[in-house]
This record gives sequence, C-alpha cells and structure tokens, in this order.
Amino acid sequence: MKKISLLGATGSIGQQTLEVIEQHPEKLELVAMSIGENIDLGRKIIQKFSPKLVSVMTKETCDKLKNEFSSDITFVYGNDGLVEVATYKDSTIVLNAVVGSVGLLPTLKAIEAKKSIALANKETLVTAGHLVMDAARVHNVSILPVDSEHSAIFQCLQGENEKNIDKIILTASGGSFRDKTREELKNVTVEAALNHPNWSMGAKITIDSATMMNKGLEVIEAHWLFGLPYEKIDVLLHKESIIHSMVEFHDGSVIAQLGTPDMKVPIQYAFSFPDRYPMPSTKERLHLWEIGRLHFSKPDFDRFKCLGYAFHAGGIGGTLPTVLNAANEEAVAGFLKRKISFLEIENIIENALEKHVTIKEPSLEVIRQVDEETRLYVQTLLARK
Amino acid sequence: MKKISLLGATGSIGQQTLEVIEQHPEKLELVAMSIGENIDLGRKIIQKFSPKLVSVMTKETCDKLKNEFSSDITFVYGNDGLVEVATYKDSTIVLNAVVGSVGLLPTLKAIEAKKSIALANKETLVTAGHLVMDAARVHNVSILPVDSEHSAIFQCLQGENEKNIDKIILTASGGSFRDKTREELKNVTVEAALNHPNWSMGAKITIDSATMMNKGLEVIEAHWLFGLPYEKIDVLLHKESIIHSMVEFHDGSVIAQLGTPDMKVPIQYAFSFPDRYPMPSTKERLHLWEIGRLHFSKPDFDRFKCLGYAFHAGGIGGTLPTVLNAANEEAVAGFLKRKISFLEIENIIENALEKHVTIKEPSLEVIRQVDEETRLYVQTLLARK
Repeated sequence: MKKISLLGATGSIGQQTLEVIEQHPEKLELVAMSIGENIDLGRKIIQKFSPKLVSVMTKETCDKLKNEFSSDITFVYGNDGLVEVATYKDSTIVLNAVVGSVGLLPTLKAIEAKKSIALANKETLVTAGHLVMDAARVHNVSILPVDSEHSAIFQCLQGENEKNIDKIILTASGGSFRDKTREELKNVTVEAALNHPNWSMGAKITIDSATMMNKGLEVIEAHWLFGLPYEKIDVLLHKESIIHSMVEFHDGSVIAQLGTPDMKVPIQYAFSFPDRYPMPSTKERLHLWEIGRLHFSKPDFDRFKCLGYAFHAGGIGGTLPTVLNAANEEAVAGFLKRKISFLEIENIIENALEKHVTIKEPSLEVIRQVDEETRLYVQTLLARK
Repeated sequence: MKKISLLGATGSIGQQTLEVIEQHPEKLELVAMSIGENIDLGRKIIQKFSPKLVSVMTKETCDKLKNEFSSDITFVYGNDGLVEVATYKDSTIVLNAVVGSVGLLPTLKAIEAKKSIALANKETLVTAGHLVMDAARVHNVSILPVDSEHSAIFQCLQGENEKNIDKIILTASGGSFRDKTREELKNVTVEAALNHPNWSMGAKITIDSATMMNKGLEVIEAHWLFGLPYEKIDVLLHKESIIHSMVEFHDGSVIAQLGTPDMKVPIQYAFSFPDRYPMPSTKERLHLWEIGRLHFSKPDFDRFKCLGYAFHAGGIGGTLPTVLNAANEEAVAGFLKRKISFLEIENIIENALEKHVTIKEPSLEVIRQVDEETRLYVQTLLARK
C-alpha cells in the first residue's frame, strides 16, 4: 500500500489524483491532504477518503472543521499546515499539486523527510530547481514528474542511458489562441482564453497555455528534472496533444509517449512507477486511426513571446526564473480580474525581467525576497491600469 | 570490440550493416560473412573489411576466390558454409540478413554456439519460431530484432515489464500500391511494385510490402519475439513510416519509436544494445515540423488479403506459417519473372493454405519437407501459367 500526502486536493490535479486513488483502493491510500478555498468540496473529500491529517488555508476554517469532524482527524492550516501534510509521518509519497510558488517549501521539507515527490507544482523547480534537485540527491529521493510532458519524457527514458540523449522535445498544443495572429490577440476575452482545446485544467495553467508561458515553465522544469542544458530542449507545436513529448537519442532514434489527453495517466504513473497499474476498462484508449492525423510545426518565438522569455530566464538562471514566474502569476491574476489585456501579460513579464538584476545560486530566503519584490512591482504596475 | 558474422553481406541489409560497421571501427569488426550472387561486390567487401571467413554460394566461386585472395582468408560455400559463418569461433554476434527460409538452419546453429542473434531474416521466426525461441531460452541467447518495426517495439519495451503490455501496434506504410483499389491492382507492373514510397529495400521485401504480406510475416515474427498472442498484435496504416511501431500498456500509455526511414538505425541498435552508439553528424535527423503531418488509418483486410492470411496462419500455427511463407516466396518469384499478375500472388497463397493439412509442433525436418512440398506445389501452379 502506497500512502499518499496530497497537497492541493481541491484543485484540478488534486481531484484527478483522488479519482486515481479511488480506482486503486488495494494499492493507494490518502493519508493527508491540503485543501484550498472550496471548503464544501474539502468536506466531501474528508467524508469519502477519511485522511488522518487535513490542512486548510485559514485558522478560521481550521477551527470550523475541527468542530464538524471526529477528533481522529487532525486539522492544521496555512503554510505550516502545508509543511505538516508534506512531512506527515505515515505517508511515503507526496503529490504536490498546489498552484504557485507556495508549493516550494513543502517540497523541500518533504525531501528532507525522505518522501518520494510526485511533482505537479511547476514553480517548485522553476524558482528553486538547484535547491530541490540538490536536496533530492543528498537525501536520495525520487522526483517523479506529474506534468504530462515530463511524465512522457520520464517514461521514454526508462531503460535508457542519459548520456545518449541528444535532445528532449516538449510538445505544445499552442493553447486556446494557437490559430490567432498577434493582431487578433489584442482584444481576446478571459472566457475565450479559458477555453483550452484539449486539456481540462485549472484557470491559471489554461491562461499559461494560451500565452505559452506554460511551455516556457516546462522547459525550465525539464532542464532541472533531466539535468539537460537548454540547447538540448526543443519545443514542438502539436495541436492534438496526442504525443505528450519525446526524447531524441544520439543514434537518431526518437522515443515518444502518446495517449489521450488525460492527466490521470501521468498521475497514476507517478504512483505506480516503476510498475504500471491497469486503467479501468471503461477508460477511453488512444485510437490513432480514429484521430487520423497528427500535426507538427515550429513555434514562432515572435508570436509566442513568453516562450522566448522562459528560455532567456532559464539560460541566465539564478533569480531570473523566479522573476519570470512571479511576474507571470501576478500578470495572469490581473488578466483574470480583467485589469489588463491578454498581450499586456507579456509586456509586464518583459518589464519585470528587464528591471531585475540577477543573483546567482540564490538561497531559499533570497528566492522568497525576489518573489515578493517582483509581485509588489507587478501589483504596482497593475494598480496604474 | 564486438566481432560480427554477417550472413547476406551483398544484400540490401548486408550493405547497410557494413556501413554501420565502417562507422564504428573502434567498436565493431566484421570477422566472417556470406555473400550471394554478386561476386564483384563480394570481392570489394573482402578487400575493404578483410574478414577471416567467407562463404559463397557455389564450390566454383569458392575455388575461384581462394586463388584470388591470401590464404589468411578461409573460403567455404553452400548451406554448410552459411552454418560455418554463423558459428565462426571468433564472432560474438551473428547478423542474419539472408533472404528466405535458407536463413533458418544457420540461426539455430548460431544459437547452439551461444552467439547473440541480430535477426533480419523474417522466415527464421515465421517458419520455426517455436524452435528458435526455445533454443534461445535453453542456450540463454538474445534474439535482437533488426526489422525497423520489431526494433521499435524492442526499444519501447526497455525498462518496462512485459506483463503490462496491452498490445503492440505494428505500423505499415501500405507499400507501393496503398492508394490503389482492388480493380486498379489487376494490371500493375513489376516496376511499379518495386517502387516503394519510403524504404529502400530488396526486391522480394518490396513486393511483400505492396501485398502487405511483409506486415503479415512481421505479425507472426512479433508473436514469437515478444511472446504475445495474436489478439494483442494490431496493424496500423501509417503512410509516412515515421512511427516505426508502438506498445500500448494497460495504463493507457503508449510508447512509440520514431525516426527517418533508415535501416541503419535498427541495425546499429542491435549491435549497440543495451547502449546506443552515436550516428554520424552528417546523418539526417527526424524533424517532425518539416514533415508536418502524420497519417493513420485502419488496414482493410479485404483490400490487403495477405494480412488476413498471415493472422490466420499464425493463429493456427504448426506448419501453416511455413506454407504461407514458402507459397509467398515462390509466388513473388513468379510475379518478378512476370509469370503471374500481382493479384495472383494472393490466389496462389490462399490455394496453398487451403490445401495444407497442418502439422502441430513440427520438427526442423518436417518444416523443411513442408517448405519443399509447398514450393513444388506452387511451381506446378506457376508452370500452368
């Protein structure tokens, strides 16, 4: 039995993780979790899965739930609560599906507590990849990717020697606006941006798909996860999202992982690795003859500016990816609140990157400071709108 | 240094194998080989690679070459010569690239001599898969596939547990006539049949691609190589021949191997396994954005009758695949000699299969007899034309 701590149970990845756990009651058990703002959903999960430890966002919610449930369940809250869930003594694997840089500290603490890490929180590696991967090495802990692209690459690398990798190729659907020109992007709405053609995901990541910042963050994540220089990471537009990513080896052979766009496959793989658990027979399988065609093209770095920013920030490293990530989070929040237009997301990120003086090999404390400063800076920019 | 015995050096696969050996002089050495009717080419290979043992087809050629070359090189001939090359004491790996069922005995003898087998000769597994795989188990010898499809599947299975396989999916280009109707196939020429859209291969296999018997033989080969029942083997039309084959696991995840259509990749992989050697930087890499689209469709078993015959013969087993293979070889030879039309290839095979009473678990001797009887039978049919 694998005992799971789930950070972000009420989010999109959290919900799909719970479905996976439910499908394998003989193999997987939820022992601890954190929930977000959706308390009603949190209640339902507690009733269904009976975790032993639950972290909520505020002390108020914590006190309320304590009164509602049996004293067998421990309730905690806030950032300390997240760390308690991440380091819960009974869990062996931590799936980190919180959104944003708040996921960083729990990941580091879980590594120190020698838990396996199933990582769906991009920001953890984007902002502190050097700290996380170092800690994983020191504590001999596996970092198992949950993103469909990184899970694909991870699967393609099984049985292979990493020295033989020529490049990894991250596929990108191009998001909601992949067929629009720059001119057409000027006046797109929040609703249109949230309408992703292939994947059902949370709001922030769906906007990141439309700007292709999501792919940019994945490039940086891949750099850390697979220990590869940026020259060995390519992005390929593939609108059907059927090939989830590929690895090209130095003999010219390319190994790819394919499937229907279903996050439950990479989530389950992170739990089952190095084995694979069966999917329910009701699940739709990939039938390439039904799909008929797969399309591929090169991403246009003028059209998708965020992708270029990410390669730039990743290549320079240090605190610059933290600025990229924090500016993006705040800018996307501003767009979702209709304070700025879609293309202003890019302008704000570019602005924040240009302004920043990079600090090399930053500590967790420096990363936190830069993250905060960047957010304040972007909020100032947004306040003027 | 891996020391190689090459059966069929003057054929298409043989020539590409020599190119691979030439590209890795520090890793690969040709120590023994057999050549076919092209003696001039054989001479050039001897001069370039200085093998220690050479087998030719006839005593006459053997005597002639003995006089031409230094006594450091041993010359042998005929079927015994093939076995001598296959069991040559200094070689550690035997690449069997002879065409037809003549490749069977050398394979079995090489296995008994504990050589690793790189297998490009389909007939070996088609006619005697049970004997070959049993012998490989008994002598603890690896059978490394050289066909691009089986190499693809073999690569996709690295690091995986075979119990998790749901099915393997062999891709098929559809051959020279994939866009033609049955009606249009009635009067196609030998020249048109030999014009394969993607792969540069020998004449027999190119005709087999056009009838899709090649894929049928590969289905039977896959059944033996990967120990899978026929229900777990699918064929998918994919005209670009970029995805060389796939494995679908029971978690819904599909792993595929892709590349430019270049037989040197699977040949080299059989030599380098479990490692991968670098390809020369001059070699063209796969660029999916240049190709733009990949197409997939279901094969039509009414349109490609040979594919159905192969599933039928494989499913029944025993001597029936030997009949399938021998009838096909003779019928294709008849077509290449313009004795019969393209669609008559199918009729002859169907005829031979219907006439045969299957013998279960045949010995090598029974396989030989059935092979011979079938050839005689088909030759009788051809003589009437």
